[in-house]
Amino acid sequence: MNRILEDVIHKNAATVERITSENTAGYVVADNTANAVAETSFDNTGAQAIVKHLHGVLVSSCQSVIRDLDPTNKLCFLRVATRKFEYLVAPEDYFTITVVQ
Amino acid sequence: MNRILEDVIHKNAATVERITSENTAGYVVADNTANAVAETSFDNTGAQAIVKHLHGVLVSSCQSVIRDLDPTNKLCFLRVATRKFEYLVAPEDYFTITVVQ
Repeated sequence: MNRILEDVIHKNAATVERITSENTAGYVVADNTANAVAETSFDNTGAQAIVKHLHGVLVSSCQSVIRDLDPTNKLCFLRVATRKFEYLVAPEDYFTITVVQ
Repeated sequence: MNRILEDVIHKNAATVERITSENTAGYVVADNTANAVAETSFDNTGAQAIVKHLHGVLVSSCQSVIRDLDPTNKLCFLRVATRKFEYLVAPEDYFTITVVQ
């Protein structure tokens, strides 16, 4: 896990605590360069699945779709409502955060 | 354009009118079986691009990601926030609606 990500996670620990205490199924923070789980409230298998599928497949295909439609545009946030959960995905430069609620 | 879709569009014309009159850049309704534009407020090129990229690539990859994470789950609604617009995508059985705002 890289240094920047460690700092960010440490700085926002209190906020994460507050948000996850209400109505949240869990969260995953993943490192973009290594495509690895950095911090999560899920078990390893569940977190790995989210990183692989949501971050690996969905976010990158979404970014290229947005760029195809308008090359000057950029993906900011992705909200996927499903029958059971809602996935909130925030792709940043160094890390990607997914919250499941 | 199939019969069901024509009926749906006709029935909801008033609602569409009301919603699009405020803060909306445009909308596209696409037929899922033919993957063709059924009704839109964009020009043909823009609408075709949205159908091809958003409906063709993004919605189907999103559906398979959701199914991969949990086989009993189903995609209901997709919200893609970009720097310029927000794409709201509602995939239904016979048609897919995208609103750009």
